[in-house]
Amino acid sequence: MATAAPMDAVSRPLVGVVIGDPCGVGPEVVAKAWASGRLHAVCRPVLIGSAAAMRQAIQIAGLTASVRVVAGPEDILDSSDVLDIIDSGALAPADITPGFDNAACGLAVATWLDEADRLARAGRLGATVMGPISAEAMSMAGVLDRVINVKPGESYLLLASGPLRVAHLTDHLPLRDVSALIMAELITRALHQLDAVLRQWGIAQPRIAVAGFNPHAKGLEDETQIAPGVAQARAEGVDVVGPVSPDTVFRQGIEGRYDLILAMYHDQGHIAIKTWGFSGNIALVVGPPYVHVTVAHGTAYDIVGRGVADPSMLRNAILTAASLAAGRGFASLA
Amino acid sequence: MATAAPMDAVSRPLVGVVIGDPCGVGPEVVAKAWASGRLHAVCRPVLIGSAAAMRQAIQIAGLTASVRVVAGPEDILDSSDVLDIIDSGALAPADITPGFDNAACGLAVATWLDEADRLARAGRLGATVMGPISAEAMSMAGVLDRVINVKPGESYLLLASGPLRVAHLTDHLPLRDVSALIMAELITRALHQLDAVLRQWGIAQPRIAVAGFNPHAKGLEDETQIAPGVAQARAEGVDVVGPVSPDTVFRQGIEGRYDLILAMYHDQGHIAIKTWGFSGNIALVVGPPYVHVTVAHGTAYDIVGRGVADPSMLRNAILTAASLAAGRGFASLA
Repeated sequence: MATAAPMDAVSRPLVGVVIGDPCGVGPEVVAKAWASGRLHAVCRPVLIGSAAAMRQAIQIAGLTASVRVVAGPEDILDSSDVLDIIDSGALAPADITPGFDNAACGLAVATWLDEADRLARAGRLGATVMGPISAEAMSMAGVLDRVINVKPGESYLLLASGPLRVAHLTDHLPLRDVSALIMAELITRALHQLDAVLRQWGIAQPRIAVAGFNPHAKGLEDETQIAPGVAQARAEGVDVVGPVSPDTVFRQGIEGRYDLILAMYHDQGHIAIKTWGFSGNIALVVGPPYVHVTVAHGTAYDIVGRGVADPSMLRNAILTAASLAAGRGFASLA
Repeated sequence: MATAAPMDAVSRPLVGVVIGDPCGVGPEVVAKAWASGRLHAVCRPVLIGSAAAMRQAIQIAGLTASVRVVAGPEDILDSSDVLDIIDSGALAPADITPGFDNAACGLAVATWLDEADRLARAGRLGATVMGPISAEAMSMAGVLDRVINVKPGESYLLLASGPLRVAHLTDHLPLRDVSALIMAELITRALHQLDAVLRQWGIAQPRIAVAGFNPHAKGLEDETQIAPGVAQARAEGVDVVGPVSPDTVFRQGIEGRYDLILAMYHDQGHIAIKTWGFSGNIALVVGPPYVHVTVAHGTAYDIVGRGVADPSMLRNAILTAASLAAGRGFASLA
C-alpha cells in the first residue's frame, strides 16, 4: 500500500472513474485495469458507482482485490489491492440485469456522472473518466442529456489514437447542415480554446492544423470562412495552419506534424481515427474546467460476465486522464 | 527475352502505360518499374509517350535498358531489357522542361491518353495505366477534360490500399451539394455496375458494403435513399449491406469483411484510404470498358532528374492492372 506524499496532488492526480453501466463490461474492465497495478504509478484512482457491481466484477475477473466504500476522494487507501469506491446508493444491487438495458441503471449512471462532475468542479478530483455506458438505458431513464455533450463554440469532442489527435468543430449533425455552421468566428474561438487546453495539458508550443471542408480544401466554406478564421487565430498567436486538404491532413498528423487537428464534422475525424487505429483510442471532452476522458468502447453486452473483456482501452483512458491532469501531455503515454 | 505464348493474351495481358508528364518523374518511375523485371512475369507492357523522354529517364536512373519505338502493341519485343514505346510524335523533345509545367507537354499527355483509350477500346490493349500527370499543364493546354473523369451513375473512382478498396458515388463536388445526389436509384445502379466489374476482375462472389452519409448512418439520406437503394440491389442479387456507419465500415474493410466499400463522397473514402495507407495505394476508374489504373502520386517536380523517384506506386499500378485484366482479382498482388 502506497502512502500519498504531498507532491502527489501534482504528480499523481486524483482521477474519478465512473464505472459505466453495471449491466455491461464496465465493472469488469475497471476491476482489471485497477488490479493491473499500472494506475497507481501515475495517479490516485477512485471509483464512482456501485460497490456491489464491483464486488461481482472482481469475482468474474478472478481477482483477489477487495472493495472499500469511501465518503470522498480524500478517504482513499490509494492501493492497487483495494478498490476505493464512492457509492452514494444510487442503485439497488437487485436492479442490475447483466447483458440487458434497464432504466434504473441508466438513471444511476447519470447520478454518478453528476457526482463526478461536482467533485471535479470543486477541485476534489483532478480528472474524471467515464467507463462504458449504454445510451439506450439512459434514454429509457430520460437522462441521456446528462452525459457531457458538445456544443460548437463551447465544447469539442477530441479523439486520440497514438500520434493522431482530432478535435471536432461539430458533432452529431446531419451532414447537409454542417456547411451553415462553418463560420470564421467559431473557428477562431475553437482554436483559442484548444490552444489553451493543450498548454494546460503540458504541450508548451501546440501546433494545430485545421482540416478543410471540401475536397482538397477548395470550396466556398474553405475560402470564405475557414481560411480567415485560421488567419485571425494565427494573427492572435496560435500556431495553426489551414485549411489543409482533408485527405492529407490526418496522415500528416500520424507523421507527427501537429499536436492536434481540428476537423469540421463528425465523420471527417472519426473516419480518420477509427480507420487508422482502434485499440488505443480514447475520447476527451474539451470544455469542462477539468480533464474528462471517456472510454472508446461500449457495454459489450454479448460478453458480459465471462471475464474476457479487454481492459486496455479503459486503462489507457485513465492513464491519459492522469497524464493530462498532471501536465505531462500525451507524450508520457506508453 | 521472353517469347509470347498463345496463352499470354489471357495470363499476361497487354498493358499500355502512358508515361505521364515528361517534365515530371513519370518517365523515371516507368523506366525503373520496367527494368525491375517484375512486370513481364504478369503482363506484356508497352509504353505510350515520348521515346526521347524515356531515353533521358534511363540515363537519369542509371539503367542499361534501351528504348525501341513500335507502331502498335502487336510489335513489342516483350523484354525487360528493351522498353517498347508507341511514340506518335505528339511531343517535340525540345518542349520538355524538366521540373516545370508547360502546355505542350499537357497537350501531349492528352494525346497519349486518347491513343491508349482507342487501343483499349479496339481490344488491342487489355488494360491501361496512367503515369503521373500535371493537371496544371493540361489546364494550360485546355485539355484537362480529356483525363478520364467520373460521373455519378456512369463511372466511379476506386481507390485501393491493401485490403481496403473504396469506390466513390460522387467525386469533386462541394460537400454541401452531395446530399441532393444521394438517390436510391443511383445507388442501386452503382451497385450493379460495381458488382459486375468485380466479377470481371475475378472476384467470384463480391461482397459490397455501402457507407452511410450521416454520423452512424442515421439520417434522412440514410433512411430514405441509401437503405432502399441497397435493399433493391440486394433483392436483385447483389451481396451488399448498408448503410453502415461511416466511421466503422472502413475498419471492417481492412479486416477483410468486404471486397469493396461504396463511399458517398470524395473525402469519406479518400480520408479512409490515405490515412490508412499510402505507398501501396492505387486508383482505378470504373466505367470504361477496360481496366484503367492511375498512379496515386503526382509529378514530384522537386525531385525530377535526380534518379531518386520511387517506382513502387507505379509498379503496383501496373501489376494491379495486369491482375485485374487477367481476372486474377486483387488477391494475387504481393
